[in-house]
Amino acid sequence: MSKIIAINAGSSSFKFQLFEMPEETEVAKGLVERIGMDNGIFSITVDGEKHTINQDFKDHEEAVNLMLDKLVEYGVIKDISEIDGSGHRVVHGGEKFDDSVLIDDSVEEEIDKLSELAPLHNPANLMGIRAFRELLPDVPHVAVFDTSFHQTMPESSYLYSLPYKYYKDYGIRKYGFHGTSHKYVTQRASELLGRPLDELRLISCHLGNGASIAAVKNGQSIDTSMGFTPLAGVTMGTRSGNLDPALLPFIMEKTGKTATEVLNVLNKESGLLGVSGFSSDLRDIEEETVKGNERAELALNVFGNRIHKYMGSYATRMGGLDAIIFTAGVGENSDVVRAKVLEGLEFMGVYFDPSMNDVRGQEKFLNHPYSPVKIIIIPTNEELEIVRDVVRIGFSDEG
Amino acid sequence: MSKIIAINAGSSSFKFQLFEMPEETEVAKGLVERIGMDNGIFSITVDGEKHTINQDFKDHEEAVNLMLDKLVEYGVIKDISEIDGSGHRVVHGGEKFDDSVLIDDSVEEEIDKLSELAPLHNPANLMGIRAFRELLPDVPHVAVFDTSFHQTMPESSYLYSLPYKYYKDYGIRKYGFHGTSHKYVTQRASELLGRPLDELRLISCHLGNGASIAAVKNGQSIDTSMGFTPLAGVTMGTRSGNLDPALLPFIMEKTGKTATEVLNVLNKESGLLGVSGFSSDLRDIEEETVKGNERAELALNVFGNRIHKYMGSYATRMGGLDAIIFTAGVGENSDVVRAKVLEGLEFMGVYFDPSMNDVRGQEKFLNHPYSPVKIIIIPTNEELEIVRDVVRIGFSDEG
Repeated sequence: MSKIIAINAGSSSFKFQLFEMPEETEVAKGLVERIGMDNGIFSITVDGEKHTINQDFKDHEEAVNLMLDKLVEYGVIKDISEIDGSGHRVVHGGEKFDDSVLIDDSVEEEIDKLSELAPLHNPANLMGIRAFRELLPDVPHVAVFDTSFHQTMPESSYLYSLPYKYYKDYGIRKYGFHGTSHKYVTQRASELLGRPLDELRLISCHLGNGASIAAVKNGQSIDTSMGFTPLAGVTMGTRSGNLDPALLPFIMEKTGKTATEVLNVLNKESGLLGVSGFSSDLRDIEEETVKGNERAELALNVFGNRIHKYMGSYATRMGGLDAIIFTAGVGENSDVVRAKVLEGLEFMGVYFDPSMNDVRGQEKFLNHPYSPVKIIIIPTNEELEIVRDVVRIGFSDEG
Repeated sequence: MSKIIAINAGSSSFKFQLFEMPEETEVAKGLVERIGMDNGIFSITVDGEKHTINQDFKDHEEAVNLMLDKLVEYGVIKDISEIDGSGHRVVHGGEKFDDSVLIDDSVEEEIDKLSELAPLHNPANLMGIRAFRELLPDVPHVAVFDTSFHQTMPESSYLYSLPYKYYKDYGIRKYGFHGTSHKYVTQRASELLGRPLDELRLISCHLGNGASIAAVKNGQSIDTSMGFTPLAGVTMGTRSGNLDPALLPFIMEKTGKTATEVLNVLNKESGLLGVSGFSSDLRDIEEETVKGNERAELALNVFGNRIHKYMGSYATRMGGLDAIIFTAGVGENSDVVRAKVLEGLEFMGVYFDPSMNDVRGQEKFLNHPYSPVKIIIIPTNEELEIVRDVVRIGFSDEG
């Protein structure tokens, strides 16, 4: 029996979740915010009870230290030596990492190099890794990449129609993200369907504030909607998704903004927020739509339209379909979005049963019983997927 | 009986085709190249015989003048008064023109204003229009827009997930192009299928050096792959099609190019040319693929992959599908591309018969006889569609 912790570190925060393995029991979870800033906040939930502490943290190491102290204080562990390993979400693994990996100095260095492809994320992820390696030098630490699940994509999926040297010289290609989530829910779908993963054709819809769709054939991602960065693909909370690339120079000229400034608009002022004009949160949009707000309804329709198209597109790539999976905040909770995405798919064997759709955040089939293609809500659990990888890789014979 | 001429004018060239209407008989066609440059060339084909004249042309008017003289000289007409009207391809009609229109001064002005959205094309199209209005002041001249067929798209299809004011202030939305071709082939498909257009769900694949796909439901375009400009959508001869929009700033930074220079790369050095590294011409790519050139095969696979995905995507948007149409250079002639695009579509009722596929440039069904969804090659004829619009609009009671 081991205690393994999953870490998702941002530049000024980190989320943690401690599991008892191999039972996969969650024993504690929490969040540290505003690291390196004033008004730091630490919160931890143990046995369903949430404790919040206001305290400033100089850096990630200090925050990790407090977390370990509090795990002892609240009786989760007797001593920090009880932590048997950690797993770290790392956004970008490039073409280097097609699986999770035991972290050593050279892996740290590679993750650092890949910061060029994820300048906001990889350096933050590294801060968490360094703090844990410093404080727990004798246990395995594993990096779990958002990109590695998609490394199975064929060249014809991941290559852009650009001068080939851009791929060779600059690493420009589709990488895809949310891999840990797509992997978790497709594995879980296989269990729920009672059929081996390697004979299933699945469309996984991870719809949260960020959103991506993956085509997973025989357990392997063969295409996904995000691209070189998480900006691409479908409409998101504040991100534009795919655009005519000629729009960037046009917007620059019209607004006088630099390319970087326009990129910022596409990342932070577009998507549901841009179309609706008032919120990036789908719950607000749905609420306003009910009240008759036309721009809210338009945002909802644009969002639904973009995801909807992927259903047929990815079924085409796989030569057919066995199940559609909905996960993450919107996918698990929005009956409105699910209904839009599932509209009129009977021609490809998807018989949606709207009477099953009034459900939030729980595993449930939404198809008619006789539907050849199944529809399943599966709440994602990236942290569990991460600690599973720590066990698989950190404690394997090679590890 | 009337003689109507269709004109497709570029900045230094124009193509013309003269029809006898309403019989729709082609009586002459030709091409003027290098207008305003040295080494001008005029060619005309009458009764299957091609005549070529090397002569310089100061401007479009001079070229039109020579064309009219030659039509008389080769006995096509006795006098220029026999030309009863002209139809002009105009690339961009914006949101202003949802149908072809009789040209007067105010229409000319509108087309000029829309040059902002098509700076390379509309000014050239206008040169042709002005020359014809000058030389034939007493007959109707009609503008036929590449965009107007797609003006039926719903807002959820044409709106990008950008700040809404970009649409309101700058006209940023999906317009779509190749409308004249999509309109012609979908009408023809209705005839060939023996079913009214207003009960058909069609995917029209216009695959030439530029390429676009349209979802045409009940005779109306409800979505199309090109966007704000003809750069968007699928891989083309030299155009990239859709990209992660974050790539533009990244490429600028890596290469030191300006946004306009990168846009130029995306328009002129990408697509089949960029991936293969040696040609934008699909015939060259196919030839090299047979010889074992891996980059040629990759270009072919990327091209096929991008178009393939639209089959399911647009079937989804229409809630099913009645026929897939192939047209334009590649669509009419490449059995290799058609086979790639039609692969594995049985799950949605498309039963492709490869034994029917060895055909070039003629109307033909490629599906198994019992296939619920039909597959048809239909050679496009934009010029005929243009002169039909001249008859419909230039000679209507209102016209």
